This record gives sequence, C-alpha cells and structure tokens, in this order.
Amino acid sequence: MKKHLISIKDLDFKDIEKIYSLAEEVKHSPESFQNALRGQKFGLIFEKPSTRTWVSFDTGLFSLGGSSVYLGPDDMQLGVREEIRDVARVLGRYLSGVIMRTFAHSTITEFERYFQKPVINGLSDYEHPCQALADYFTLREHHGDKKTTLAFIGDGNNVLNSLLYLAAKLGHEIRYATPKKHEPDKQVLAEARALAKETGAKIIGTNDPKEAARGADALYTDVWVSMGQEKIRAQKLKAFKGFQVNEKLLALAKKKALVMHCLPAHRGEEITEGVMEGANSVVFDQAENRLHVQKAVLLFLCAS
Amino acid sequence: MKKHLISIKDLDFKDIEKIYSLAEEVKHSPESFQNALRGQKFGLIFEKPSTRTWVSFDTGLFSLGGSSVYLGPDDMQLGVREEIRDVARVLGRYLSGVIMRTFAHSTITEFERYFQKPVINGLSDYEHPCQALADYFTLREHHGDKKTTLAFIGDGNNVLNSLLYLAAKLGHEIRYATPKKHEPDKQVLAEARALAKETGAKIIGTNDPKEAARGADALYTDVWVSMGQEKIRAQKLKAFKGFQVNEKLLALAKKKALVMHCLPAHRGEEITEGVMEGANSVVFDQAENRLHVQKAVLLFLCAS
Amino acid sequence: MKKHLISIKDLDFKDIEKIYSLAEEVKHSPESFQNALRGQKFGLIFEKPSTRTWVSFDTGLFSLGGSSVYLGPDDMQLGVREEIRDVARVLGRYLSGVIMRTFAHSTITEFERYFQKPVINGLSDYEHPCQALADYFTLREHHGDKKTTLAFIGDGNNVLNSLLYLAAKLGHEIRYATPKKHEPDKQVLAEARALAKETGAKIIGTNDPKEAARGADALYTDVWVSMGQEKIRAQKLKAFKGFQVNEKLLALAKKKALVMHCLPAHRGEEITEGVMEGANSVVFDQAENRLHVQKAVLLFLCAS
Repeated sequence: MKKHLISIKDLDFKDIEKIYSLAEEVKHSPESFQNALRGQKFGLIFEKPSTRTWVSFDTGLFSLGGSSVYLGPDDMQLGVREEIRDVARVLGRYLSGVIMRTFAHSTITEFERYFQKPVINGLSDYEHPCQALADYFTLREHHGDKKTTLAFIGDGNNVLNSLLYLAAKLGHEIRYATPKKHEPDKQVLAEARALAKETGAKIIGTNDPKEAARGADALYTDVWVSMGQEKIRAQKLKAFKGFQVNEKLLALAKKKALVMHCLPAHRGEEITEGVMEGANSVVFDQAENRLHVQKAVLLFLCAS
Repeated sequence: MKKHLISIKDLDFKDIEKIYSLAEEVKHSPESFQNALRGQKFGLIFEKPSTRTWVSFDTGLFSLGGSSVYLGPDDMQLGVREEIRDVARVLGRYLSGVIMRTFAHSTITEFERYFQKPVINGLSDYEHPCQALADYFTLREHHGDKKTTLAFIGDGNNVLNSLLYLAAKLGHEIRYATPKKHEPDKQVLAEARALAKETGAKIIGTNDPKEAARGADALYTDVWVSMGQEKIRAQKLKAFKGFQVNEKLLALAKKKALVMHCLPAHRGEEITEGVMEGANSVVFDQAENRLHVQKAVLLFLCAS
Repeated sequence: MKKHLISIKDLDFKDIEKIYSLAEEVKHSPESFQNALRGQKFGLIFEKPSTRTWVSFDTGLFSLGGSSVYLGPDDMQLGVREEIRDVARVLGRYLSGVIMRTFAHSTITEFERYFQKPVINGLSDYEHPCQALADYFTLREHHGDKKTTLAFIGDGNNVLNSLLYLAAKLGHEIRYATPKKHEPDKQVLAEARALAKETGAKIIGTNDPKEAARGADALYTDVWVSMGQEKIRAQKLKAFKGFQVNEKLLALAKKKALVMHCLPAHRGEEITEGVMEGANSVVFDQAENRLHVQKAVLLFLCAS
C-alpha cells in the first residue's frame, strides 16, 4: 500500500518510533544509507519559496543516492495552467515521490488522490509535520524517553497544529499560549485531545504566556507575521504584544529549558536577540534535525 | 559526426527503428542503462516553462547516470544578455548536450550551428519531435508494426508538423481536420507529401472533423489556446467550434480507437471530460512514453 | 582549519601553484577525480543571474561526484527574509560549501563568518578570483612559467582587482589603461603594489590604451556597461571612447598576443567583431578554463 506523510495523523506510534530510530541511525552513520534511494527522483513542488525545506530535502535525497527536481512558484502554477489531477497523474509516471509546499492544505490532499507514489507535506496552511517531527527529535536528544512539557508561545498556526498532534501521539504535555482569536483550529484541538486521552498526553491552552512557560522543559515560538501577511503586520504586532519569548519569560521555565524556533526569526518581535543567541537556544540543532528526520521519513516511506 | 534531433527530418527510417527498439528496452529494463550516460551533464534551456518536458528529461537523464541543469526563462535570455553564438560556444565547453524549448525554431538552429554537442528540440514554434516520437511509440504498443490511421483534430501546429513528418517517414496514414486558415504550414505539407510518396504513407487534409475521424485508429487533439495566446482566446474558441473531440466524434472512429492528447488539456474546449477520462484514452501513457522515448533519443545521440 | 576563496589575497604562492597543478591534472584526466567530492552538496547562492559561473560550477561539481543546489535571485533574498547569520548557520548544517555571487562583497564576508564550511567567491562588486585564476591559467598554457605582460584595457572593476592581486602574487607585469575616474580602487592598488615589491611584479597604470598595449603578451577587456548599469549606459560609452580593443590596438601588442575577455562581450563597444573572432582570441579557452580551475579550487578547498 502506498504511504504518505501529509499530516502527523498519518503516523501511528510505531511509525514515529521507526522514523526516530532511522533518524538516529542516519544522523550518526549517513554513509550506511548512501544508496538507500538509489535512482529515485523526487519532485519538490513549492508554491512558496523556502530555504530550509528545499535545501534539507535536496541534500537529504542526494545523500541517500536519490535526486530532486525543484518546481518552484513560477514553474508549476498547479491548477492554473493544468488541472491538479492531470499534473499528479503525469508526474506519477516520472517520479518516485513528491514533497509539496503549498498555500492550501487541500492542494496536497487533492494531488495525493491522483499521485501513485508517496507525498510528503513540506508545509501547508494546516500542518508542518516534518518540522514537528524534527522538533520532538531534538527534544529526545536532550530528554530521551522522558515525558516533557513543551510551551508554544505565539500564533495558533500550522506548526502548532502538527506539534499538538505529535505531542498527543507521543503522550507528552504541550501547552500553548496565544492571544485571543489566535487560538489553534478547533477541529485540530478536538482531535488532539481525543488522541491525548488514549496516550495520557496533556494539552493545556491559555492566553497567558507566563502560565504556559512556568516550569516548562522547552519554550517554542514562531514568527508572528508570516510570508504573505505583510499587510496585516501592524495589527498582528499589536495582538501579540506580551507574547515575546524573552529573558523574563525564559526565567519562568526550567533552568535548562530549551529555546526552540522553527525559523526564520524576527529578533525584537517574537524573540529577543539574547534568548535566540543564548545558551538555551537549540534553534540550529532543530534546523539540522530537519535533514536527518526527513531522510528518515524518506527511508520510511520509499526505501524498499 | 555530431548528431542532433531538431526535426523529425533529422532521422531516417533506421534511426527511428533504432530509437524505438532502445525505447522498448529502456522501458522494460531501465536498470540496464543506469550508467549509460555516466558523468554527462545536459543543459535544459527553456524559454518557456514546461512540466512534462522538464521533469521527463531531468528524470530520464538521472536514470541513465547523467544529470541536467535547468536554465529557465529568467536565467538565460538567449540573444539578449549575450549573443547566441557566444552562449553556444561557451556551453559547448561545459556540457554534453542541450535540450531546448524555445519560441522561435531559428533559436535552436542558430544555437546548434555553434554548439559542438548534440541538441534536442524540446518544442519550438515549428516542431515537437519528442512528442511525436512518443505518440507513435504509444500507437505501436497497441498496433505493433501494423499501419495505422491517426486523425488529428484541431490546430495545424508544431505537434501536427512533427506527426506529419513522422507518419510520412513510417508509412502510416495521417489525417488532419483543422478550421480554415488553421491548416498546417505549406512547406511542411509539401515535404511530408514528398516523403510519403517514397514510403506509401497517406496524408489527408480536411476541414471536417467527421471525415477525419471516420474509421480512424486514433483521435488526437491538442489545446486550442496555447501559452502566450491568451489575447486571441475568444477568437480561437470561435474558430475551433465543432472541432471538439467528444463522444459523438469518437463514435465515428474504430471501436477501440485510442484517444490521444499531448497535454495540458482544457476539458470542455478541445476535449470533453468523458472522452478524456474514458476507456479509450491513452493520454497518460503518451506522457509516460515521453520519458522512455526521450531516454532512447539520448542513448541514440549521446551514448558511446 | 576551514579554508575559503573570497579574494585572491586568501591564496599564497604555493596555494596558487597547487591549484594550477590540480587544474592541469583535472583538465587532462577528469575521470581520475570523478569521486573526489563524492556525496558533497554545494549551494550556489546567486543574487544575480549568471550562465558561465552557474553551469561551470554545477558541471564541475557533478564531474567530481558532488552536486549543487541553485538558490537564485528570487529564492533567497539574503538579509531580507532572514538575517545572513541565520541563513549561514542553517546552511552550514546541510551543505559542504557554497559558491556566492553577490552585489556587495560584504555579503560574502559576513556569510563566511557564520558558515562553517568553505565559501567561494563567484563574483562580487570587489573581486572575481575564479575568473582571474582561469585567465592566468590560460596564459600559462601559452607561455608556461615565463613572466608575461598583460594589458587590461577598460574599466577598473572587480575583474581587474583580482587580476592585479594575482599578477602581483605571481610576479608578472600587469598594465591597466582606464579612463580617468575609472581607475581601480586605491586600496587594491596599494595592496597589489606592496605584494609586487616582494615578488618582482610590475604594476603600471595609464589612461592611454596604446601605452598599455605596446609589446604586451595579452590584451584583456571586459564589458563597459555591466548588468544593472543600463541607466548610465550613454555616459559610460562616452567615457570609454578610445578604449576599444580593435585591430589597431592589437597591432601594437606582440605578434602572437592573446586577446582575452571574460564575457559576455558587446561587439562594437569594448571589442570589435574582427578581434573577438580573430586568430589571437582565446576567449572561449578562458571560459573553458573556468571549469577546470574551479574544479581545482574545489579540490584544493574541499577534498579530503
């Protein structure tokens, strides 16, 4: 059966454990996997530009013996020049899989219905599963199998959605502090809470960053104003006042609490220079782990 | 002697047979050719975007041990930033060959004069030889060596030009039904008819789609309004009224007649949803065969 | 210790000799190096488009067993979407090195401070070291170890800066003839003259092309109006009147003097059709030697 990774929901606990075990192996012995995807060509279908996702997948595929072709914002125009179902069926005849970065999540799910090979979500407006997998992998590197408390401070966005699902699947505690009206999607919350009941995970929402940060093992933030939101910049900056991850907030967390950020960072907005560059920050480890975890996802989905 | 594929006219009957025999081999045993173009780097010089041609050549080259570098519409500006003869001579020092997708056919022929390695036409305003080769390869998969009758319904364009030359070289019957003033180029017709005399091919032109479709082994259509023609859209839709490949027209062809389209398709214009998605449609097989036939062309031109 | 090539100044005499010896080997036996950079992925970070630099590095890396990912003008926007220090630290986790083509030289030096792997300058507003290395390699192919006199006629630009440093390091004579106010940067001149004192190199500046050309082993020119300078085109054409490398000027040089140009060329401006296409011209050899010399630079910096 064809497998894909469009949502964290596509993975059960065993799948995640398998991916993390592969990620450890591939991080420590990359040369053992240098022919694992030999001859496999993947499409990187990106409706919006990206440095991290593009380069980490391209490098990852190359280091597994595969290769990628980058189809960028101006190249494809999915659904404009050609119907998605036609593009998907044609590319399915050429490629071993695709990584998609789209505006609408539905573009990925529609593409997947017609594409005969694995589809990986490289970010949509609804989820960012590869990011969340890399984030919890980074936490594991510090805390092993111990249950942790992650405090996400900021916008109830796609990254938080994936973190909620993943914390729920793994049985961790996750807290989110967002301004009012910026809470996570209600359906995501309902689904994550249902999963949490089975695993013993805890999901705690608040509008008070301090409440979320207190005693946490990690503080996580993300840009307030994403690509394409420049028009509502002033409005968002106002709404998120007080939600900055700064020295004061960090002092409420555990002493060795990790500072996490999925980048790019806007210092002085969602995070301060001092916290970003401080001893607790693992933001570049997170970025590096994108590479290893995504290689593991590729191996999990595509290696024979 | 350097070889190239700019026009179907560059190939004699033996060349085509050799390419088709290679295409069968490479389709059924791709792994036998995985080092055939080892170390060869090709340029994809594309003045207009393309999904099919780009991805099929890129994947094809990779699966032969080669690689491509994509030089897109914004990257090169052939003849603007630098004279074509200079670009060609420089790239000839770096690359093993190029695939070109241009507006003017003359851009390819001028480039070829100064480029010391194989040049492959990946579509010009005059011909689309790789498409035509893939199309007749698809027909062969259904009819073997038997002579067939292909009815092309629509615009007398570059795809039809290449199909006319190829049908003439192979000794097949080809019919075209176009609106008045949209007939194929007179020189192409004269040349194809001269070739047809030698091979016993038949070339029949009409302005009546029914006449062309009656008893045909395959109905072939292409978009009416190509990229860059959006301004004359209304005018073209009017001119091509009645030239749609629909259920009625298909009923006139042989019972198992193939429905062919070189994509992208505009359902409701040149083809109906029902015919495009129906049992007779081989449009995605055609697209897939682009990959195999182009690999065969690369092997034919570039393998040592 | 990490090595880079941002300026010719980064190389001492032994380094240059090593690079030239590698370049000879790699030019004559490319297959001996086909796995030298196996598994290494490089970023091509280009703020401005380029055919020669892009394709020569991409092909060179591929022929060494490595690979590149092209991050073009629209893809990265260094320092706009994300701070340079963050991009550099993230990419340092994924890539084995980068080749950068930027407007400001300081973009490269800032990137290098935060990037843990080799950085190669593929052209900045201050230097073009790979070009200068290929140029003197081309001279060596004709004159061996003999000291030569190179006359650069035109604009005191980045290419001339790198040629000045390199001539000084190698102990050659270099003359430059520029219009007034288009002389090379004063600091570059001071540094090159200081180097020349140690090596016996001669650096001669003039505003008279004839004086520079007389008895020279090679005449070198470059476009007067670079990419991005179109607004001051008329003004520059006026200033450079009389600085054309034409038949008259060439007649003043040695009989077998080489004609050199780093391309693209604007015939009728800085060079005539006759001289560009004449028997003395080695412009396409220079372009080819970009490939071999850059492969040598990559081997020098990155091979283990």
